[in-house]
Amino acid sequence: MLVNNKKFCSIWSKNKQVFIIDQTVLPHKFKIIELLTINDFKNAIKDMKVRGAPLIGITAIYGVAKSMQKDDSMKSLRQTINILQGTRPTAVNLFWGLKKIETILKNTNKSERAKVAFEYADYLAKRDTEINENIGIHGSKILTEIAERNKSSSINLMTHCNAGWLATVDWGTALAPVFKSSEEGLDIHMYVSETRPRNQGASLTAWELKNQGIQYSVIADNASGYLLQEGLVDAVIVGADRITSTGDACNKIGTYLKALACNDNNIPFYVAAPTSTIDWDEKNAGKSIKIEHRDQSEVLTIAGLNSRGKLEKKLALTPLGSKAANPAFDVSPSALVTKIITEFGAFAPNKKNLLALKKLSDKHD
Amino acid sequence: MLVNNKKFCSIWSKNKQVFIIDQTVLPHKFKIIELLTINDFKNAIKDMKVRGAPLIGITAIYGVAKSMQKDDSMKSLRQTINILQGTRPTAVNLFWGLKKIETILKNTNKSERAKVAFEYADYLAKRDTEINENIGIHGSKILTEIAERNKSSSINLMTHCNAGWLATVDWGTALAPVFKSSEEGLDIHMYVSETRPRNQGASLTAWELKNQGIQYSVIADNASGYLLQEGLVDAVIVGADRITSTGDACNKIGTYLKALACNDNNIPFYVAAPTSTIDWDEKNAGKSIKIEHRDQSEVLTIAGLNSRGKLEKKLALTPLGSKAANPAFDVSPSALVTKIITEFGAFAPNKKNLLALKKLSDKHD
Repeated sequence: MLVNNKKFCSIWSKNKQVFIIDQTVLPHKFKIIELLTINDFKNAIKDMKVRGAPLIGITAIYGVAKSMQKDDSMKSLRQTINILQGTRPTAVNLFWGLKKIETILKNTNKSERAKVAFEYADYLAKRDTEINENIGIHGSKILTEIAERNKSSSINLMTHCNAGWLATVDWGTALAPVFKSSEEGLDIHMYVSETRPRNQGASLTAWELKNQGIQYSVIADNASGYLLQEGLVDAVIVGADRITSTGDACNKIGTYLKALACNDNNIPFYVAAPTSTIDWDEKNAGKSIKIEHRDQSEVLTIAGLNSRGKLEKKLALTPLGSKAANPAFDVSPSALVTKIITEFGAFAPNKKNLLALKKLSDKHD
Repeated sequence: MLVNNKKFCSIWSKNKQVFIIDQTVLPHKFKIIELLTINDFKNAIKDMKVRGAPLIGITAIYGVAKSMQKDDSMKSLRQTINILQGTRPTAVNLFWGLKKIETILKNTNKSERAKVAFEYADYLAKRDTEINENIGIHGSKILTEIAERNKSSSINLMTHCNAGWLATVDWGTALAPVFKSSEEGLDIHMYVSETRPRNQGASLTAWELKNQGIQYSVIADNASGYLLQEGLVDAVIVGADRITSTGDACNKIGTYLKALACNDNNIPFYVAAPTSTIDWDEKNAGKSIKIEHRDQSEVLTIAGLNSRGKLEKKLALTPLGSKAANPAFDVSPSALVTKIITEFGAFAPNKKNLLALKKLSDKHD
């Protein structure tokens, strides 16, 4: 997608060099970093310079590739994987990706390891982009239909957190249909929920939309109910960190409140995610979803740009010594989800559709 | 209530001097200001050094009294009222209070005007305190019952915004039952929703609870749904800026989302407010409630204490040039309200109860 009218991805390689956009200083600074050492990769993931499940996984595999350039021994491979595994304790894609590349490189000639790792990372980046573009194609049909039903060339949407291209390699998930239908000429206005405590909406989603030339209004997370009550929103579209085999959607904290308000006001609530997000293991559905609780400081402080143009990373918002509770995700029950938009199409999350989707995704795995 | 273990009100007079707590620098600084000139009063209301409907009204009447000390002519009275009326365009209590004191002073001997205005302001402050303490008494019964039903000596509550003593003269509305039952020995833990965009929860409610020695955890507004889903909250208790004749509660933006989540998880949702908050005019119910939309900058920026201990008033959170939508209130339909807690008792907001409440409040007016 666009940054200052130039095409960018959130990560890319060129002549075996790896570059990322530093997401910790957005939207206030646009900073490209080259990742050179294994420490660079470790810190980029740990400090959330890159974030979003697929992007983290792909970054780690580029990290392995860079490491193999310097030392392609099995010892170096094992050390590299150990370091990268310790960066984000709950990132499933990270573990999956590292396990996969380890298996591949074990069975690769020493001198070929760097090359093979680069090719694999490039392949995953390309596949991520294709999957997300397909989510965009299927989702844009839905958005166009809504506009047609309203006999309007414009549409008002609401999203939560950042499920745009910065959370993936390109296109994003929830925002892929937005970018796609905007390219096709649909006039879109987005309500962007700021998404406390980390404000990914106000900082990242707003920045993506601004660069793409799509109209948006940032809102306090609290304002979503009112806007839905007033009929000012045609649909809510969000991403998902995990979808259960029964169609419940686990996503950034606060998503459930939007799902409830959509349901109360008869407004469609869409979850856009690749089928790799669906955990088909029935044991992992319902109450068994473990919610990550993050550091209190995320609630007690906030980051932003001060009046002197300097980044303040920890502005205190509460009385000294306050405690905070900071659950990072919540679960929107499938009964509140109108459709799940995947790379294979959009489906109401009922038993029959989920079964069909499982068969489709098994075939492509 | 307590500040550093000493009793305080949000406004008080002593030997015809008027003092307030500057609420714009809380929780980071505790600053008492004496209001001397009519400009001091104007700015205190306009800049929200004092806030909350009853407190604004009473501050204005103290302003009239101080003004009458200097010049007790009718010309001075009219000028004073004009200046104070221009401070907060939507504050009904302000207009009501100024109209009332104007009528009283018109019919008062010139030399008595300052004295009479002071007495009237003192009377209103005392009455506000009594009404709120009664809300506290009725509400604390409910909280004790919940604890008894749970066979527990402790209770977990959630509130939104600040409806504590800082929003009134003393006791508060939503927090009056909390303070009262805490005094009676109930062990309370409060989840305090930070209440973006102005963060009255994180700054004012947290500060009140800290000073009162009541346990609390600040949460992002987004976290309320998850905590209610998980059964971590026994009841939600909020204030109201206006209640319609049909029992719909208009309160700080985001309240409706908590009401929805309470309803979805079968958790009681209480609205605590004096009967003066109820607008009995049936024409003003339903869709006719006009919602104030406040300045975009409240969403685009935030205030807090930086790492060097300085107050930052406008930390930018979004890309430069972003727009924001900033509705200040939303309406929780009466079907979502378990009980309204008033100075006369707690009532489910059905037709019969509302009619009885109207009769009671007419009698006391």
